[in-house]
Amino acid sequence: MTLPEKLAQLYGVWVGASADGGEVAPYQHEMEEPVDLADLLDVGLGQLTRPFGTAPVDPALGALSLARTQQRIAAANRFGIPAIAHEECLAGFAAWRATAYPVPLSWGATFDPDLVRRMAAAIGADLRRVGVHQGLAPVLDVVRDARWGRVEETVGEDPYLVGTIATAYVQGLESAGVVATLKHFVGYSASRGGRNLAPVGMGPRERADVMLPPFEMAIRESGVRSVMAAYTDTDGVPSTADESLLTGLLRETWGFTGTVVADYFGIAFLRTLHEVAGSWDEAAAAALAAGVDVELPTVRTFGEPLREALEAGRVPEALVDRALRRVLRQKAELGLLDPDWNPVPPVLDGADLTDPEAVRGTIDLDPPANRALAREIAERAVVLLANDGTLPLHRPARIALVGPQAHERTAVLGCYSFPAHVGAKHPEVPLGIELPTLAEALRREFPDSDLVTVTGVAVDGDDVSGLPDAVAAARDADVVIAALGDRAGLFGRGTSGEGCDAESLTLPGAQQALLDALLDTGTPVVVTLLAGRPYALGRAVEEAAAVVQSFFPGEEGSPAIAGVLSGRVDPSGRLPVSVPRRPGAQPSTYLSSRLGQVNEVSNVDPTPAYGFGHGLKYTTFAWTDLVVDVPAAATDGELRLHFTLTNTGGRAGSEVVQVYAHDPVVSVVQPVQRLVGYRRIPLDPGAACRVEVTVPADLFAFTGRDGRRVVEPGALELRLAASSTDPRLVAAVGLHGPARHVDHRRELHPRFTVTASAG
Amino acid sequence: MTLPEKLAQLYGVWVGASADGGEVAPYQHEMEEPVDLADLLDVGLGQLTRPFGTAPVDPALGALSLARTQQRIAAANRFGIPAIAHEECLAGFAAWRATAYPVPLSWGATFDPDLVRRMAAAIGADLRRVGVHQGLAPVLDVVRDARWGRVEETVGEDPYLVGTIATAYVQGLESAGVVATLKHFVGYSASRGGRNLAPVGMGPRERADVMLPPFEMAIRESGVRSVMAAYTDTDGVPSTADESLLTGLLRETWGFTGTVVADYFGIAFLRTLHEVAGSWDEAAAAALAAGVDVELPTVRTFGEPLREALEAGRVPEALVDRALRRVLRQKAELGLLDPDWNPVPPVLDGADLTDPEAVRGTIDLDPPANRALAREIAERAVVLLANDGTLPLHRPARIALVGPQAHERTAVLGCYSFPAHVGAKHPEVPLGIELPTLAEALRREFPDSDLVTVTGVAVDGDDVSGLPDAVAAARDADVVIAALGDRAGLFGRGTSGEGCDAESLTLPGAQQALLDALLDTGTPVVVTLLAGRPYALGRAVEEAAAVVQSFFPGEEGSPAIAGVLSGRVDPSGRLPVSVPRRPGAQPSTYLSSRLGQVNEVSNVDPTPAYGFGHGLKYTTFAWTDLVVDVPAAATDGELRLHFTLTNTGGRAGSEVVQVYAHDPVVSVVQPVQRLVGYRRIPLDPGAACRVEVTVPADLFAFTGRDGRRVVEPGALELRLAASSTDPRLVAAVGLHGPARHVDHRRELHPRFTVTASAG
Repeated sequence: MTLPEKLAQLYGVWVGASADGGEVAPYQHEMEEPVDLADLLDVGLGQLTRPFGTAPVDPALGALSLARTQQRIAAANRFGIPAIAHEECLAGFAAWRATAYPVPLSWGATFDPDLVRRMAAAIGADLRRVGVHQGLAPVLDVVRDARWGRVEETVGEDPYLVGTIATAYVQGLESAGVVATLKHFVGYSASRGGRNLAPVGMGPRERADVMLPPFEMAIRESGVRSVMAAYTDTDGVPSTADESLLTGLLRETWGFTGTVVADYFGIAFLRTLHEVAGSWDEAAAAALAAGVDVELPTVRTFGEPLREALEAGRVPEALVDRALRRVLRQKAELGLLDPDWNPVPPVLDGADLTDPEAVRGTIDLDPPANRALAREIAERAVVLLANDGTLPLHRPARIALVGPQAHERTAVLGCYSFPAHVGAKHPEVPLGIELPTLAEALRREFPDSDLVTVTGVAVDGDDVSGLPDAVAAARDADVVIAALGDRAGLFGRGTSGEGCDAESLTLPGAQQALLDALLDTGTPVVVTLLAGRPYALGRAVEEAAAVVQSFFPGEEGSPAIAGVLSGRVDPSGRLPVSVPRRPGAQPSTYLSSRLGQVNEVSNVDPTPAYGFGHGLKYTTFAWTDLVVDVPAAATDGELRLHFTLTNTGGRAGSEVVQVYAHDPVVSVVQPVQRLVGYRRIPLDPGAACRVEVTVPADLFAFTGRDGRRVVEPGALELRLAASSTDPRLVAAVGLHGPARHVDHRRELHPRFTVTASAG
Repeated sequence: MTLPEKLAQLYGVWVGASADGGEVAPYQHEMEEPVDLADLLDVGLGQLTRPFGTAPVDPALGALSLARTQQRIAAANRFGIPAIAHEECLAGFAAWRATAYPVPLSWGATFDPDLVRRMAAAIGADLRRVGVHQGLAPVLDVVRDARWGRVEETVGEDPYLVGTIATAYVQGLESAGVVATLKHFVGYSASRGGRNLAPVGMGPRERADVMLPPFEMAIRESGVRSVMAAYTDTDGVPSTADESLLTGLLRETWGFTGTVVADYFGIAFLRTLHEVAGSWDEAAAAALAAGVDVELPTVRTFGEPLREALEAGRVPEALVDRALRRVLRQKAELGLLDPDWNPVPPVLDGADLTDPEAVRGTIDLDPPANRALAREIAERAVVLLANDGTLPLHRPARIALVGPQAHERTAVLGCYSFPAHVGAKHPEVPLGIELPTLAEALRREFPDSDLVTVTGVAVDGDDVSGLPDAVAAARDADVVIAALGDRAGLFGRGTSGEGCDAESLTLPGAQQALLDALLDTGTPVVVTLLAGRPYALGRAVEEAAAVVQSFFPGEEGSPAIAGVLSGRVDPSGRLPVSVPRRPGAQPSTYLSSRLGQVNEVSNVDPTPAYGFGHGLKYTTFAWTDLVVDVPAAATDGELRLHFTLTNTGGRAGSEVVQVYAHDPVVSVVQPVQRLVGYRRIPLDPGAACRVEVTVPADLFAFTGRDGRRVVEPGALELRLAASSTDPRLVAAVGLHGPARHVDHRRELHPRFTVTASAG
């Protein structure tokens, strides 16, 4: 291969599929120079960027358009190599008319990796059948500051929860033959002040113990084939130019063999925003040397600038060959180099490709099975934060549904959903999927109730002229459902989402004023949140009849919430992020040492209103008969205990058994506790089971003073808990023997054995 | 010496001097066990903690009380060794009736190390003459999050400004023979979320380039003899137990030979709050091994627990000897081991010590010379942030002075002033010093004006019932002076001060509502802030006639502000911290890389309303005729340039020439610019001078990827600026030759030569 041919495999071009089945067209992003495909294709092309997620196209015509362009790409280069087509799929395939699943924060709330794995397999199958090879998901960033706009895209604030859920997602996506992409490697969620892209200041120990473990887990357990370098710099070093991270840790220590792709424009940012490169070729050289293999979304630095640097000898060609081998190996695995490679996906087999109109509408990316799955996740992700007995609602005569989310069809969608991400630029195009509103869902759920809906205030802005109507409706009702929360959008278009960071965790706009006015009426208020981040709810924590938290629950979110309100659905979600009491104590998560939690030394109270892992049920569970079978073990051994879990209420329900480790004396300051395992256990009323938990000593490992991960001997505590603030059984345990370095942990999980018992 | 005798030199006992000249009495702090002096003294005593700063006592009787106890201490141990008496002196001697100088944030605003040096010499003289040997100041913490309550105790958000001002303070204090104490070593100001004592998450590079340089400078240039370990942990390692910091860096790299003292209760916190020690003796051992020599305020871990650990062989006695040598060397230097040591300070010579009443009132700790100095600093520290021409006030007929600071006598004091720190617990005792209120000062300043004062709202709380009166007064006036700000206090007693952290940078309580109501009247509003931190001022940034910022300006603060308002005083203060536009973008300071400042990628705007270094004058200055004499130098060379500064206005005034370095391309992400030098230059109207600046290459050093400080070759920019947001002359310069490691910089400062010129 010539140098230009090699380089061509290392970059993408941003395109949009044709709405009429013709070839894709380069997408002119405001941050990029214009690109002419015809000028590029004779040397080949590494990637096609977002053929479906750039403009609304019929899925089948999009598939046809993509196939035609792939055919052209393969035909245009000497080796017949097509491109890898990649797409966003954060909460479902980000394509018009594709299923909008709940956002990752809702996946976290399910505490149910199996369910997430099934969802990702379905997403992967949909991507694959229209010709997409790689999905830019999941997000493994661990929430550190809830003001950050992208909190909705994360799984939560605990690395173990993030790791297990994201790993399941990758397993599902990869099971469909789609390359999953771990992002953002690493640190992005700790941007200073929660401001998008702001510098990350954390130290190496926090990075090792909080930010890296989800990536480590996914790489070990999921067969993931791509990793995306994060935009941010940590303590001055941009991830995109960090060889110790992208090559040292990722490949040499963890053994990752796939591709590393740049975040969009991330290599150019080395020059324009990080200012560690003085030219495009310096930016390219820094990224390539660090271990970035592919420039996305569109060639800027890996084309002409890098070629010139290579020819001038400023960059060794071996670095290009290294990246090229990774890209071509991946193309080979994907079958793109097979002699019988067919650009036309099987789903279009037999169609008359010369007649786009015959193809139109032949692919359904939101079939009933998808929708059922979206519903199942949404139902399992609703978190009941508070309930004075008002819920489930017992055939209320008059319901007042009040708030900006009452009628808003897109209130269930996150910022990477197609309607929010792309559709917002095409207001003339229909949403493409059915999105029942909360009002519609409640009308269906409570057909015998008199339902009045009032918006009251908008999601944002300070217009309170609608308050009197809202108050009047509330006064006349038996119960108020206050439908509050966020509007997802990009860069200022929303109150949550990429670039939509918050200054504080007060509800956006005048929503707290609306909520306070509703509470003042004396009618029981059920706060119902459709949001992208947790919010401090002020008086409502004490005064609301109930609080129902949902994190953008996707296309079936409204019926799911309605089902929880009526009792048709047993609430079983758990908080993947703390809900704060005060709006201004950020950054703060449950994963904090004692000095991050004590209240005596500062008048800013960091205590959460509802802690990580919290979630009420309509039934009750008893945790009894703790037996610590193995209370002490060597630092390379295992502890074991068991207890009995009984559904003591009158309804079916699920408990999420959470295991927290607490180390009372440790050589470096640690979070007071951290989640080391969990298991969701459904039980019928009256049923009981014996839960045995085996905890390898490896799970107590942390990064010691010398920067190496260590398991220290000493007294420990295992807390079997219904949430981080609700330990039910506490086992005093201990490790003995020498401190043990565990650069590679043998075990990442506890083992649960759940046995039905007489109860 | 026996082991108990050795250990006794390594701890203090918190005492209060006797109000009637009798012996000091142990102070019973709520966090400590009771201590009986009689039980302790036969083995000696290292320190006496806060004899004056614990309860209000007449200074002369306090000196007598302290002398008597020193005599007893010396007599009780075999070697006749008295204790080192230490006191707080953050903004003046924290004793009853002592001068209350402006707080350090005001020192920063002066940009005038010489003035601060004079103040510290005066403080030191006052400490010394009543028998105090050590002062627990200055604070060298660099502001990272303006929500932190202790911002008022710092010099500001730039390490060079902090370093130069704090070094001058130490030089002054030490010149009086008093041991200065650098605190808090290191990281405290970066507590997560601005919450007091919360963990610090910064990486080693930020620590090296931002937090450490002020300490390095003070140790090199001031002869400081003590350092206090910070409460906080950084990335999991508590400073108090960090050998690499307290011994490796401080002593082995920097060559410090004095004592390291614990912050109050800081060693015990290793067990109770950091949880890195399982017992008092483990806490003691960890601190001692790290390099803490003295436990303060009162013996807890360095007594019995440490003795037992030593006797059991768990701690080597050599560590005790090491600390002991440092303590005894310091006592020797202080003359405490001299054969002719006299516990009675010279000021009491000749007094009849048996008759306390004859002694009472013989020591004046707030003499006219002090007060004049306090006035001079206060005047120089007032920062004029905005002025539409309303200021100076031209004989207004009717002035409305509105706001909670109008009548509040203590509004000028910081939280370490005696009245706020101690006096608050003794409401029956008079303030002890004259503190003119703003109302009194304005009445004196504008004797011919009709002055109406209205409180309107309190500093905190949400009572807005006083708004109508405030608005009425404003409507009837020619000008409104809105007197807003903070109440300094400890742990919840204030809105600023230790433990009084803020959730956001909105003015406390209902003050913004008051301000908005005043702006609505249409009468010109001069916002006048007596505060401990910068606040976002909302509409006032656009709508106020003028904004006058004062950071707790001390006992002469009100007349100083009044003088600026009338024009009697030329305003010449400059902001030592950015004043933010938005209340919720913290942490954020001017010392930020481009990604911490850009606005396109987040909807939270970090742009300041008034940038670091900003301050208006009543005159104008022209910066002209830049000549870059030496635009290029080797990485161990020097650059040189000069320009002409002319007072082009009609009044005398001072310009603060600020030199910022900007490195357009650098190997690790850097702040866009940082202050590398400054010089305050007073000029008469029409006068001009030639300012030559020589900038050693060392000043461009930063911590590189390998963790070592380096000067890199390349193109650079030197900005000669009136503030960080107002560069007046920009010099393109460059360094050549090899990158140079500078673990020890030869030069820490530029050299200024100011020559009067024809103008």
